[in-house]
Amino acid sequence: MAKKPSKPAARDIDYKTYLQLPVLLDAQKPISTAHDEMMFVVVHQTYELWFKLILFELDRVQQIMNGKVVRDADLRTVSASLGRIVATLKLLVGQLDIMETMTPLDFLDFRHVFRSASGFQSMQFRELEIRLGLRHDDRIGYDGKSFENYLPEDDRKRLHKIMAAPSLLDQLDKWLVRTPFVETGSFNFRAAYRKAVMDMIAQDSAAVKANRKMPAQAKEMELRKLQGMAAQFDTLFAPTAVPDSAWRLSQRALQAALFIKLYRDQPALQAPFRILSDLMDIDELMALWRYRHALMAQRMLGAKMGSGGSTGHDYLVATAAKHRIFRDLFALSTFLIPRSRLPKLPRAVEEKMHFRYWGKKGDAA
Amino acid sequence: MAKKPSKPAARDIDYKTYLQLPVLLDAQKPISTAHDEMMFVVVHQTYELWFKLILFELDRVQQIMNGKVVRDADLRTVSASLGRIVATLKLLVGQLDIMETMTPLDFLDFRHVFRSASGFQSMQFRELEIRLGLRHDDRIGYDGKSFENYLPEDDRKRLHKIMAAPSLLDQLDKWLVRTPFVETGSFNFRAAYRKAVMDMIAQDSAAVKANRKMPAQAKEMELRKLQGMAAQFDTLFAPTAVPDSAWRLSQRALQAALFIKLYRDQPALQAPFRILSDLMDIDELMALWRYRHALMAQRMLGAKMGSGGSTGHDYLVATAAKHRIFRDLFALSTFLIPRSRLPKLPRAVEEKMHFRYWGKKGDAA
Amino acid sequence: MAKKPSKPAARDIDYKTYLQLPVLLDAQKPISTAHDEMMFVVVHQTYELWFKLILFELDRVQQIMNGKVVRDADLRTVSASLGRIVATLKLLVGQLDIMETMTPLDFLDFRHVFRSASGFQSMQFRELEIRLGLRHDDRIGYDGKSFENYLPEDDRKRLHKIMAAPSLLDQLDKWLVRTPFVETGSFNFRAAYRKAVMDMIAQDSAAVKANRKMPAQAKEMELRKLQGMAAQFDTLFAPTAVPDSAWRLSQRALQAALFIKLYRDQPALQAPFRILSDLMDIDELMALWRYRHALMAQRMLGAKMGSGGSTGHDYLVATAAKHRIFRDLFALSTFLIPRSRLPKLPRAVEEKMHFRYWGKKGDAA
Amino acid sequence: MAKKPSKPAARDIDYKTYLQLPVLLDAQKPISTAHDEMMFVVVHQTYELWFKLILFELDRVQQIMNGKVVRDADLRTVSASLGRIVATLKLLVGQLDIMETMTPLDFLDFRHVFRSASGFQSMQFRELEIRLGLRHDDRIGYDGKSFENYLPEDDRKRLHKIMAAPSLLDQLDKWLVRTPFVETGSFNFRAAYRKAVMDMIAQDSAAVKANRKMPAQAKEMELRKLQGMAAQFDTLFAPTAVPDSAWRLSQRALQAALFIKLYRDQPALQAPFRILSDLMDIDELMALWRYRHALMAQRMLGAKMGSGGSTGHDYLVATAAKHRIFRDLFALSTFLIPRSRLPKLPRAVEEKMHFRYWGKKGDAA
Repeated sequence: MAKKPSKPAARDIDYKTYLQLPVLLDAQKPISTAHDEMMFVVVHQTYELWFKLILFELDRVQQIMNGKVVRDADLRTVSASLGRIVATLKLLVGQLDIMETMTPLDFLDFRHVFRSASGFQSMQFRELEIRLGLRHDDRIGYDGKSFENYLPEDDRKRLHKIMAAPSLLDQLDKWLVRTPFVETGSFNFRAAYRKAVMDMIAQDSAAVKANRKMPAQAKEMELRKLQGMAAQFDTLFAPTAVPDSAWRLSQRALQAALFIKLYRDQPALQAPFRILSDLMDIDELMALWRYRHALMAQRMLGAKMGSGGSTGHDYLVATAAKHRIFRDLFALSTFLIPRSRLPKLPRAVEEKMHFRYWGKKGDAA
Repeated sequence: MAKKPSKPAARDIDYKTYLQLPVLLDAQKPISTAHDEMMFVVVHQTYELWFKLILFELDRVQQIMNGKVVRDADLRTVSASLGRIVATLKLLVGQLDIMETMTPLDFLDFRHVFRSASGFQSMQFRELEIRLGLRHDDRIGYDGKSFENYLPEDDRKRLHKIMAAPSLLDQLDKWLVRTPFVETGSFNFRAAYRKAVMDMIAQDSAAVKANRKMPAQAKEMELRKLQGMAAQFDTLFAPTAVPDSAWRLSQRALQAALFIKLYRDQPALQAPFRILSDLMDIDELMALWRYRHALMAQRMLGAKMGSGGSTGHDYLVATAAKHRIFRDLFALSTFLIPRSRLPKLPRAVEEKMHFRYWGKKGDAA
Repeated sequence: MAKKPSKPAARDIDYKTYLQLPVLLDAQKPISTAHDEMMFVVVHQTYELWFKLILFELDRVQQIMNGKVVRDADLRTVSASLGRIVATLKLLVGQLDIMETMTPLDFLDFRHVFRSASGFQSMQFRELEIRLGLRHDDRIGYDGKSFENYLPEDDRKRLHKIMAAPSLLDQLDKWLVRTPFVETGSFNFRAAYRKAVMDMIAQDSAAVKANRKMPAQAKEMELRKLQGMAAQFDTLFAPTAVPDSAWRLSQRALQAALFIKLYRDQPALQAPFRILSDLMDIDELMALWRYRHALMAQRMLGAKMGSGGSTGHDYLVATAAKHRIFRDLFALSTFLIPRSRLPKLPRAVEEKMHFRYWGKKGDAA
Repeated sequence: MAKKPSKPAARDIDYKTYLQLPVLLDAQKPISTAHDEMMFVVVHQTYELWFKLILFELDRVQQIMNGKVVRDADLRTVSASLGRIVATLKLLVGQLDIMETMTPLDFLDFRHVFRSASGFQSMQFRELEIRLGLRHDDRIGYDGKSFENYLPEDDRKRLHKIMAAPSLLDQLDKWLVRTPFVETGSFNFRAAYRKAVMDMIAQDSAAVKANRKMPAQAKEMELRKLQGMAAQFDTLFAPTAVPDSAWRLSQRALQAALFIKLYRDQPALQAPFRILSDLMDIDELMALWRYRHALMAQRMLGAKMGSGGSTGHDYLVATAAKHRIFRDLFALSTFLIPRSRLPKLPRAVEEKMHFRYWGKKGDAA
């Protein structure tokens, strides 16, 4: 409607000034005379601009998630920012197409110019990793050294400050722990779910035992598998469980995440479910980006044949596998059971997860 | 957890049988010996498979939306299906990349084999258009004829049956009309919003009149513009308004859609807002697909230079512009006002849009 | 092999300095406090960086194509740059995904800040259009005005200088005109091809006349169609033909382009064929980008319902249709005939199009 | 021009019949009632259709490459088919977006139906791997078993027959070995290139030794590195070299590939260079597809935390790393030297790589 702003801009600004083009378009400073260096510079600069955008969206997400209470009305905003991060990461992956228009021989024309400079030194990318929740000790070193060794002192200090603040993973943990309904009134999801799983395993075990056609050896194997499942499950759900230190989230947070994944259609869980999905998308896209990056490194720099010597390619492949931040959310898939086996939520719990306007029926027009 | 199914498959099925590969992979029957015809067949067959998937998802959406009441708990499912349709349409657009690996000369090697056959005859695509809500009378004819002229009698009959059933657009209208809160208790969104808009226009007009620096002619132009806005707005919001027949949705539905777009952060409106966005995505992607299709047609078949004679390209471009189904949702953007100007929702209305579990505060952990 | 440069960089440069990050990452200056403005700025800035890259690649292409003679050894370089432009344009199209994470309501929060500023004022984009070959007189005006009206004097002057230089389309024309083989020794492609086409039409006409089963009216229609084809063909191929002014390329250039498209497998024509394809890709992607841009504009700003008033959307759709630069290359598809009908190249002509190393046989290991 | 075919189709066929739609659209047979199974079936069926297309294009490529002589005029066709395979593989990667619209819980609703069936059993995919050149012994086993264990006897036999035929990698090797110019007349690329590399290393070593500012330890390290490079180089280029068995291509083929990569602008090498690039693209995209597949498997099935037990995810990640077929072409990047150091081709050799039509100058209009 109102193209008219409430308060008009003090001065009329033009496109060029608004976007700071005189500065922006003067900031490409290839060192060599190699033709492809311009592409190399531009692609890296756009990467840094995208990182800036991602960090900016992460600011908003973390500000909301940092609250003692996260308002339901803010969850759409969280998803909007996470969704924008997802869209941007998809572009980052696709952007490698442009880089791959360069051949190794063309790269050789100028790669000497930045012998020690490398994407390794991107502060924004390090900040992103840290703020999402990548711990320093979980990082893979390059040539046995931490990436910090490649940074000047003040950059290192800045990163240590960022490390000291709560990461998105920390905030997620606290938010999940606060999820109502997991234990509410007489309903205890942890106990109810554990019972459902154990019943299922017991029934399956009984069926195996009763199966006359199954050879004894197969039976034994199958039964051992079922026992294994029960044991694995109890690492998270037994009252006395001490979860494997490989988990990043706390036991209560994991249980809440599982609860959300299982009862995601409840109106009050739809938005939290989407947020968990968004975080998995982010984690997956970062892994994919690292992997495509690794393939490109191999194409540009070659691969050592036979045994020996780690390369940039190997390092990047390793980070794609190990620098996963929200891996717990993936791992939880192992703990799902079929919907038909799910403990039914008590009516009273379900009602609480519906909107007020619909009386107690929980339906909407 | 439970890889074990409650009821195991009666027989153990293998990959090939499960996917009906013997049938599926024997169904490519190029007529000519031209190499590229195989690609042509495969690409069109995958298109038809994607259409089948889209229609299948649409089944679920329409079944839910057809209810007298749509349960809030089902809105995530609606979004899941719409989201899958969106992902599939994106692929359809991208899939043209494969078609474009064919050159016009290669196409010429076999395009005589299907002189009268054409994508025009895809029943599934027609069904999709109709079920989304494309009306017969809004269609652009090809060479002055309806697409029906290219179909056998029984196909035509089948489509007429589909036309007789409520489209997704029809269902959307009814669902929107039922939106509570638009008029609830003492709150009347229509009246409150109209007042906000008219106040804004009045203030802006006053500011223009009071502006001493503005030349008389510019003033007059500006004031006429503001009057135009008021008039346009009243075509939808005046109590006696008779909306332009170009709108597909009813006045009440349009008002509800606007309400959802404006107050989308309210917990009860987050899911409906997402559904409106999904529908816009679908509409946009179908237009984009038609447009890329048009570009490809031009590449393959050429373009008549100078004036005269419509071509496949022109027809497709025209459908991209005119065969828009959810265009009203786009058009509503003209009716938005800045958030700072929005009428504040009464506390009582806001409360109703929050979850029960949080007392009346409307916040969540 | 040699990671060691012949001449090491005088000083060791770090990542941040190399990419000018202090300047680059300080150049985002949103005016409002609206959250989404940062995204808006970053997306537009990356667009401008991509434009810079495209223009840089175009520099190399135009420098090569400007020569009185274009060396065969340089054609791979031309294709490499055009291919990079294609990859970049694909990204430009995809990048709209990020822009579309913004809702119209969010846009409304800050779109007043740049009332008169607009992408319209992107000098780099105008330069790109002009250098590719978009003529001033072929442009569609916006609100009846040329885009120049929105530019300051010195920008206008700069563009006029660019307009005065030969465009890529001009260079393409000259290069095509110089194609050997089209008329070489006793072989005259123009005459041979014209004969082949006319023979084909004559045979088809005779077949129609001899067809006893065809009703008289259908016969007449078919014969008129064949006459129409002959007439259309002669607008380009008759010795006295004066091509429709809608063609941008000269008659000789069009004939050479057709020759390349028809005999593309000849070793000497493989690289030129690829270049023609690259140019068509560029043309198509620019149209696609304009079109997606138009869809986004509609989503953000709405569409006027009913008749009246052009909008940004309509303008952009119109430019997608009309601002096509290499459309002639698409239009030529209409002039292709099936390979089986092609005049066979004389042995002597074919031999000249093969490599020297293979004696006169024209085959390679 | 001629929409009229020389021989019209005997009967007029319609769209539905042409595409075998009655069969094709009746071939989706989900076993469960789970909603998402339809998507699962359709996605896998389209994968199989794409595989069919890829194999069909590979047929043409292998038929051409199998010749004792590969005609230059056929190289564009090879590239056209490889390019189509590349476009299709890109789509395969993107298609996972649709699969990922399924949540693990939805998958759980039906994944019991195909307990032993798995993509593992896709005969077409195995055929593709084998025909490209994946050797049986290089395959990673799953749970210690070869994929063959999951196939019926006749399928196994069919694959063994395919294994017995020359793979594309085999054909590539023979074609490369036949490359003229690598040793032609008095010019010996192998010797000339070896000299250039060794000279470069010698100069660099001398520079290091003469460098007064460099500490002794750093010097020693640098010198050892240079010796290492010389040694590595000689594994391929010394007359007596016995290449590491990790290389798949023969020494002569590797040298020819390097020659092509280094002198790619020579007219006669432009098409071969493109083919090498296409093969690298294919290799890279298959790795990428495996990797995204691995990420999806993890999302659907979870990941075992802590140590122990390989999973589908781990297996797929391992195949992405190890089932690389044209890795040699990537590895060669290590053997490139800067263009300024390249041995200049003798005039006589260069001339042979140019077209006959241009006298001996090697230039074209």
